[in-house]
Amino acid sequence: MRKNTTFAVFGAGNLGLAQAGHLAVQGFGVSLCNRSAKRLQPIIQNDNRIELSGSLSGSGRLQLVTTNYAEAIAGRDLIIITSAAPGHRVITRDILPVLRPNQALLLHPAYMFGAIEVRQLLADSGVQDILIGELSNTVFACRANGAQVHIFAIKKNIGIAYLPTGVDNRAIETFKIIYRDYIECYDTVLETGLLDLNYMLHPFINMMNAGLIDRMEPFDYYHCGVTPHISNVIEAADRERTAICHALGIRGYSAIDLMKRHYPHQVEKSTSFYEATASNVAYKGIASPDHLYTRNIWEDIPYGIMPIISLGKALEIETPVMQAIYELCRAAFGNDWREEARTLDNLGLIGLDAAGLLRYAQTGL
Amino acid sequence: MRKNTTFAVFGAGNLGLAQAGHLAVQGFGVSLCNRSAKRLQPIIQNDNRIELSGSLSGSGRLQLVTTNYAEAIAGRDLIIITSAAPGHRVITRDILPVLRPNQALLLHPAYMFGAIEVRQLLADSGVQDILIGELSNTVFACRANGAQVHIFAIKKNIGIAYLPTGVDNRAIETFKIIYRDYIECYDTVLETGLLDLNYMLHPFINMMNAGLIDRMEPFDYYHCGVTPHISNVIEAADRERTAICHALGIRGYSAIDLMKRHYPHQVEKSTSFYEATASNVAYKGIASPDHLYTRNIWEDIPYGIMPIISLGKALEIETPVMQAIYELCRAAFGNDWREEARTLDNLGLIGLDAAGLLRYAQTGL
Repeated sequence: MRKNTTFAVFGAGNLGLAQAGHLAVQGFGVSLCNRSAKRLQPIIQNDNRIELSGSLSGSGRLQLVTTNYAEAIAGRDLIIITSAAPGHRVITRDILPVLRPNQALLLHPAYMFGAIEVRQLLADSGVQDILIGELSNTVFACRANGAQVHIFAIKKNIGIAYLPTGVDNRAIETFKIIYRDYIECYDTVLETGLLDLNYMLHPFINMMNAGLIDRMEPFDYYHCGVTPHISNVIEAADRERTAICHALGIRGYSAIDLMKRHYPHQVEKSTSFYEATASNVAYKGIASPDHLYTRNIWEDIPYGIMPIISLGKALEIETPVMQAIYELCRAAFGNDWREEARTLDNLGLIGLDAAGLLRYAQTGL
Repeated sequence: MRKNTTFAVFGAGNLGLAQAGHLAVQGFGVSLCNRSAKRLQPIIQNDNRIELSGSLSGSGRLQLVTTNYAEAIAGRDLIIITSAAPGHRVITRDILPVLRPNQALLLHPAYMFGAIEVRQLLADSGVQDILIGELSNTVFACRANGAQVHIFAIKKNIGIAYLPTGVDNRAIETFKIIYRDYIECYDTVLETGLLDLNYMLHPFINMMNAGLIDRMEPFDYYHCGVTPHISNVIEAADRERTAICHALGIRGYSAIDLMKRHYPHQVEKSTSFYEATASNVAYKGIASPDHLYTRNIWEDIPYGIMPIISLGKALEIETPVMQAIYELCRAAFGNDWREEARTLDNLGLIGLDAAGLLRYAQTGL
């Protein structure tokens, strides 16, 4: 691990502040960049410092806090993008002109096909030699308030993979060493995409509690929002996801497996997804959203559910429950996300079989 | 109208008691039959009387209250079946041996393909000459407690049709005269089946409030259970139903049309289904179920949603939202209802086009 590795963190939401703050606490040089200046103000007013509490603590001073993309990445070894999934392509297009060949990107987290989409955007502009890493989920469960970030939990066994595979990158190796207790190497970005717990839960919790959320009656999002019948539906959708993993010949952790792997100290019971969720103390007190069309829909449907449905079609695996939640959302919100979604069609990957998809996930070619 | 017309009412639930009580109050001879003796006890203890209050009032004395099917129908002109839809075939099989050619049946209400299924059961046993009527919905919105029945509302413009069409029946004509202010003649039993509001609402309200119902937290079923986004989904499913009506060339009342027709004095606003529901005073105070797998699922899915999906397939009309609610229920309850559902497949009607289906709904042949 080289202490002189430098990082740029994009996105000043809960996760971005936790990520930037924690790297700074460790003594690394960090810049923080956000499209809107408003979210950066509390950090600037706090002398560029982020204060961590909870599972991690300390005060980390950032080298630079800016809305200027070029300044933020100048000379940085690793650019960590913590935005919501629709931001990946926006940020990539913005930083394209100023990226340098020795820099690497890390999508934290990637959702489905994150690195693949970013690599295609780079390739379309003639940039071929940027390594793109991605994480299967967020390392931190956290909530920010101004410059204060409370870390509820650091998850375990979050998957990391790169596109292309087999290329060494000093900065990503440093990241892996920093987070060695929390991350696990996956073989390809198909695994980091497919082994994400979030999009398997959120749309179902939102839509099967739609009445309550629409009426703005708050509830404990996971502990009250996942009831036995809702858990049945999530498990049925999850079997569709793991069937796709098996068809691709990649690891096929179930949602219960993933929850136990990510929260080994928090999950007590796990004979059903309902029990695992109810026993997960890290979920305690996480509030329901105050409206229905949150990122749990506009991120999880086009960047999680729809890509998986398209994979199912390519591999001839039926995905009726995923299709059901998609159709329910389409009807509820009047949006089909057809142009935006990271489907195989939109990525130009129609016609590839399992072997072809795996090869593409290794090479990006 | 002949005052000497006699009725047998099957089913001693809310609706059956309202139906039997109201006919008795009008001075008709009525028998009441129920499989279980328990529900009949309060009536017997009340000297065979049913007491109506609310929109209708009076005390009606029944001629016979019994669990014996043969006794209940002996000499009765019209046999009104008020059971849940799965009861139609059970009751039909039970009364088959004692039915007489001059008797008629009325399914109150029918759900999809009710008369068609009953006619097939009769025909399979060589009984061809029984006229079967059906209603598109329940005439009474009511709640029974012992021998007391409170009528919240009498609906308007409930559709009635017969199989086969074009056959006169004195008892059904009498029924139509008694309820002339509340019912409307439809052309065929395809219309009474397809123009039912209930199955278009209940599964969506249940499943999109699943968290709350699973946690046994009561809410006002219609007024709180139909929120703007849930209404969007119901309207999207409803467009699939009306597209099928149009493909069949039959009247295609929307859910909003039906609510306005059934509750002309109760519904105030109706620019959206949400507004119509929220303004319908007849829905006020109707409680949510205390568990999720109620007849709003086990009746509405196999006797409403699944038959419509099968009609859509036959007519090449897409029904993705109906399919979505079906798949969600299948995943939640682990039941696919394949053997039980009144689908075209199970009714042996695969291969008929719109004209063929209409002809079958007129003739049963």
